[in-house]
Amino acid sequence: MAAKLQLHEDRLFPSDPVQRGIARELYASIRGLPIVSPHGHTDPSWFAGNAPFPDPTNLLIVPDHYVLRMLYSQGIPMESLGAPRLDGRPHETDMRKAWRLFAENYFLFAGTPSRMWLDWVFHEVFGLREALSADTADTYFDTIDAALKTDAFRPRALFERFNIEVIATTEDPLDPLPHHAKLIKDGWGKRVVTTFRPDNVLNPEVPGFAQNLDRLGVLTGCDTASYAGYIAALENRRAYFKAHGATASDHGHPTAHTADLTRREAENLFMRVRDGGASAGEAETFRGHMLMEMARMSQEDGLVLQIHPGAFRSHNQPVLAAYGPDKGGDIPMRTDYVTALRPLLGKYGNNPDFTIIVFTLDESVYARELAPLAGHYPALKLGPAWWFHDSPEGMRRFREQTTETAGFYNTVGFNDDTRAFLSIPARHDVARRMDCGFLARLVAEHRIGIDEAHRIAEDLTYNLVRKTYRFA
Amino acid sequence: MAAKLQLHEDRLFPSDPVQRGIARELYASIRGLPIVSPHGHTDPSWFAGNAPFPDPTNLLIVPDHYVLRMLYSQGIPMESLGAPRLDGRPHETDMRKAWRLFAENYFLFAGTPSRMWLDWVFHEVFGLREALSADTADTYFDTIDAALKTDAFRPRALFERFNIEVIATTEDPLDPLPHHAKLIKDGWGKRVVTTFRPDNVLNPEVPGFAQNLDRLGVLTGCDTASYAGYIAALENRRAYFKAHGATASDHGHPTAHTADLTRREAENLFMRVRDGGASAGEAETFRGHMLMEMARMSQEDGLVLQIHPGAFRSHNQPVLAAYGPDKGGDIPMRTDYVTALRPLLGKYGNNPDFTIIVFTLDESVYARELAPLAGHYPALKLGPAWWFHDSPEGMRRFREQTTETAGFYNTVGFNDDTRAFLSIPARHDVARRMDCGFLARLVAEHRIGIDEAHRIAEDLTYNLVRKTYRFA
Amino acid sequence: MAAKLQLHEDRLFPSDPVQRGIARELYASIRGLPIVSPHGHTDPSWFAGNAPFPDPTNLLIVPDHYVLRMLYSQGIPMESLGAPRLDGRPHETDMRKAWRLFAENYFLFAGTPSRMWLDWVFHEVFGLREALSADTADTYFDTIDAALKTDAFRPRALFERFNIEVIATTEDPLDPLPHHAKLIKDGWGKRVVTTFRPDNVLNPEVPGFAQNLDRLGVLTGCDTASYAGYIAALENRRAYFKAHGATASDHGHPTAHTADLTRREAENLFMRVRDGGASAGEAETFRGHMLMEMARMSQEDGLVLQIHPGAFRSHNQPVLAAYGPDKGGDIPMRTDYVTALRPLLGKYGNNPDFTIIVFTLDESVYARELAPLAGHYPALKLGPAWWFHDSPEGMRRFREQTTETAGFYNTVGFNDDTRAFLSIPARHDVARRMDCGFLARLVAEHRIGIDEAHRIAEDLTYNLVRKTYRFA
Repeated sequence: MAAKLQLHEDRLFPSDPVQRGIARELYASIRGLPIVSPHGHTDPSWFAGNAPFPDPTNLLIVPDHYVLRMLYSQGIPMESLGAPRLDGRPHETDMRKAWRLFAENYFLFAGTPSRMWLDWVFHEVFGLREALSADTADTYFDTIDAALKTDAFRPRALFERFNIEVIATTEDPLDPLPHHAKLIKDGWGKRVVTTFRPDNVLNPEVPGFAQNLDRLGVLTGCDTASYAGYIAALENRRAYFKAHGATASDHGHPTAHTADLTRREAENLFMRVRDGGASAGEAETFRGHMLMEMARMSQEDGLVLQIHPGAFRSHNQPVLAAYGPDKGGDIPMRTDYVTALRPLLGKYGNNPDFTIIVFTLDESVYARELAPLAGHYPALKLGPAWWFHDSPEGMRRFREQTTETAGFYNTVGFNDDTRAFLSIPARHDVARRMDCGFLARLVAEHRIGIDEAHRIAEDLTYNLVRKTYRFA
Repeated sequence: MAAKLQLHEDRLFPSDPVQRGIARELYASIRGLPIVSPHGHTDPSWFAGNAPFPDPTNLLIVPDHYVLRMLYSQGIPMESLGAPRLDGRPHETDMRKAWRLFAENYFLFAGTPSRMWLDWVFHEVFGLREALSADTADTYFDTIDAALKTDAFRPRALFERFNIEVIATTEDPLDPLPHHAKLIKDGWGKRVVTTFRPDNVLNPEVPGFAQNLDRLGVLTGCDTASYAGYIAALENRRAYFKAHGATASDHGHPTAHTADLTRREAENLFMRVRDGGASAGEAETFRGHMLMEMARMSQEDGLVLQIHPGAFRSHNQPVLAAYGPDKGGDIPMRTDYVTALRPLLGKYGNNPDFTIIVFTLDESVYARELAPLAGHYPALKLGPAWWFHDSPEGMRRFREQTTETAGFYNTVGFNDDTRAFLSIPARHDVARRMDCGFLARLVAEHRIGIDEAHRIAEDLTYNLVRKTYRFA
Repeated sequence: MAAKLQLHEDRLFPSDPVQRGIARELYASIRGLPIVSPHGHTDPSWFAGNAPFPDPTNLLIVPDHYVLRMLYSQGIPMESLGAPRLDGRPHETDMRKAWRLFAENYFLFAGTPSRMWLDWVFHEVFGLREALSADTADTYFDTIDAALKTDAFRPRALFERFNIEVIATTEDPLDPLPHHAKLIKDGWGKRVVTTFRPDNVLNPEVPGFAQNLDRLGVLTGCDTASYAGYIAALENRRAYFKAHGATASDHGHPTAHTADLTRREAENLFMRVRDGGASAGEAETFRGHMLMEMARMSQEDGLVLQIHPGAFRSHNQPVLAAYGPDKGGDIPMRTDYVTALRPLLGKYGNNPDFTIIVFTLDESVYARELAPLAGHYPALKLGPAWWFHDSPEGMRRFREQTTETAGFYNTVGFNDDTRAFLSIPARHDVARRMDCGFLARLVAEHRIGIDEAHRIAEDLTYNLVRKTYRFA
């Protein structure tokens, strides 16, 4: 007999009865609020075209780097899970067979957020009531596959069902944004917005950087062989993105380094990086300078600046070669913010009309660097627990280590940062539950009052994110 | 209707009934112990002159960098809170208006220690029973202002009322200590003592360093143009401070670096820093050498050596320029102790009659560096959770991360490190409650007995601090 | 009247009744499982020769660096505890007197794991029922001393009584392993196995390195003056160790650095380190290269590779000079894994048939580096909380900070890493209780089911360690 699949009403709440009671009360008042998803990686074509999603394996396993990495870590080749290989060697094309392999190994996810997100999807989206295992693999595959073929499971229907108010996707500056144009035409322009993610034209170490600049020139009619033209082209694209709903830019540099170059220095450095002759140090300086330029442009166009540093991308070279990037091989690095951000904060950090949101993969900076910075600089706000730390324990550490110095009001609510559309409500639900649990402890320990806690819970869930990301 | 202001009897205790019961019992037995405040920044003139404190805004907002930084981080200009600007631009001089602005934004402090400290001051010192908000701002201002004009709220009366046994202030070596002289004459010499804080004559990067040395020479009659005279002058001032009650020195260097130079090297380096020609590296070496010299002098005069490294002072240059230092713009930095302290510990760390107390702003060193060092070197003791970490969660992390390796008896009790005199009992109360809560968990988990917990609670509250700081 | 010595049945379990109930249930089902001790420092001669252990002081105080360091940190000279001095100055030889000094100061251990381990030994091994203190010191000494003289307290009898299934000792490659040979002859070959710990012939900075290589040559008949002979000699010794039960090698380098040299580079570097002429940087590179070589050999002989970096050995030079190494003067250091391990992981980390187990003294890497690496690379597994962190709070942090990214199945169960044989059951019991408490919280918060928790508890206690360390 298969084990039951249950989503307990009190899941993630503290088990202490006093705290649990308060957490329940807080959660009851905010669980129904709409989802605001200001930062993520869903595909805008889903919402523009509204075509059905693919089969269960290609929807839930192949694109999920959390799932792939755990299974791979236990010796399961990614090709046997249906992930294609770049070297042309075969991969599993029987998606049911790949799903079974996943199901047999589902026990590996015990204690991980993937397990909670997926169980939510199985239970809430697809109505499954037995736990996933080898025994139930086929039932799961059939149930999910059948549902996905119905209209009720098309992207726009799920969007409505999930009570999403607005979702931001993330696009490259070279993207002509056809799907967002279509969405605007369809009256969905306020519901799905883009985000300006210019790494590929700011980071000289990205493969194809020179060609990217050429394409940027063609797209904008600017002479991107010159620094002036390059800057003009970026301004041009920011305006284009803004016209397609963008309220923010996003920057995934390796570090948080910022640099304040003179015009002359910037021009000279641009010429070196343009020609591909820049050293690693020059590339770092260029990225730091361009982050500063992005901040400068934000003063004018009002885009919120998001910084996500600290990932060693594709740490596993053989995996990169075999399967490509974003297969679970990125690893966090120790990250400095105090010296790295000082040039930018010294120049723009005292402007309360400018907003820079900082994320980290290095939790040791929460209490030591980020909360102190956010609790002082008017422009700087703390993004939520991110990526590897977007989990119950990670969220708990985030609140415990930032609140006493930065308070609640220098944080910006939750974002899911995901491509896994079906799990978005589950992810927001985890954040809501963990915030309510944290607030419940403060109330139970008589550190804040219950009325305050209600107000804060609503602000963390809904008001702060709308306000900070400037959703109209 | 305004919300009530309540200080719950069980605040900060764990909500688990077993732990709470034990915490209550432990706290009941130590809550009445006198306050010993071995490290802080109250103004000795308050206790010497016993003049009334100023208005509420100038007492509770303008000098409190925790309060200023939080409000500033939310876009509130410091001048609108009554803080003067250095550039001569206007600041709010209507203190009631500044107070109202503070009151309107008091919700920002939810979850921070400032909120707990201030609520305690409002409730316990001034008898207020409604929460601070826009609605109650004037009542607060009037109540506090009126009280401060009465004799019962003068510094010495509050000192008695707060049950303070001894408090240490912190002075510069160039300070002639007139207030401490007066206090001695008044019979208050054992109650208010000074601390020797020579950063301004040890750190070559302090503005005015050369003039400071000149003044040090004039004050001591030593030739501070020579290294020998400089050392003699410092010894002279240490003796002078000791005669005014000092039992400790305090050192706020950027890092914990110590260096063991030969006499010749020290003389040569002194000449370079004296002339203002030292590089950043030489300045660091000089500070490291002088910390070693301070330790050497401690072997002779018995002053306890306190090290507080790891602050990036005045990170926000525009704020420094507009408002001056100590306005909330200092930011913690990653800090090394293992290699930095090795020269000093190798030379003096095995002397059990010498005491060096180490503080940190970098919590990642608690379990990794400081507890292992304190659990081995006879001279080294752990200062309590400091500054940004002087908060319920910060104190909890301190005990959780240090106790298993350093035990309780290599820690030194609490210190408030504050200039906010009225909040001193609140700060000690938070520490007492958090220690009792931590001990309660150990008892509830059968890791120590209740009798032991009682003894430890008293030691952490009273005995360790008196013994370590050598209060007679 | 002396205080009672009690080991509460629920010790270390959360005090929340819901969690405690679940923890009890889980613990009841795994408490009786045999002890598998895959990594430690007991002396194989104990089990081979089965001679009685010495007096209480020489058994429980003198060899225990946790005990020595705490007492020393409080100003108690190690010689007064019976530890010999290297400089020939006298040490206490009246072991009862040394024991009394320990007993008087036993209160210092409150809140430390040493206290829990020792109390368990006193209560469970020796049947003592009053707490250790000055008053009971002599009773303790007499009781323990008398017991140790009986056959029931000889090593093999305790081994059986402790329900140890297999224990791994740790030996130098130059060790001829006579005790393991004897154990094999006695039919104990599967119960006591060796581990290959080649630091003394891999680390050029070890005193006597050149002589060690000479002895390695003599022992193996290989020409260790040449790189080829040196490698052959190491392969020879690994085979010898494997024949004496070894399933793993162990490496205590200062850092986790690995390096991928060409044959030519390796040969040249070997010549420099062989001659003693290598710089610190070259020594580091050589160690990094040899770790890579060890991994290469593991591909062939199947030994599990264990890496234990991050200790600053003998930080306290005067203590090293007076008492020798391993007297509590080792201090953890900040440790990088992401860049350090990349060469090795890039070459061998994708081989699921190879196992590298990584330990750390720097807890800040749990969530940031080690869990992400272990949750991706098939070869890499996480060793348990180690050394300073082998304690209730340390174990709790380990699970809280690794589980969400690495899951449970990329960890390898507990190891005691100790020479303190009598405390081994206590140490495993602490790990079992803490794991059950952690699982109980996950169940109580409805994050995993109770059936899963039972399965995981058994895997963490027994199955994972046997499988990972390849015990037949």
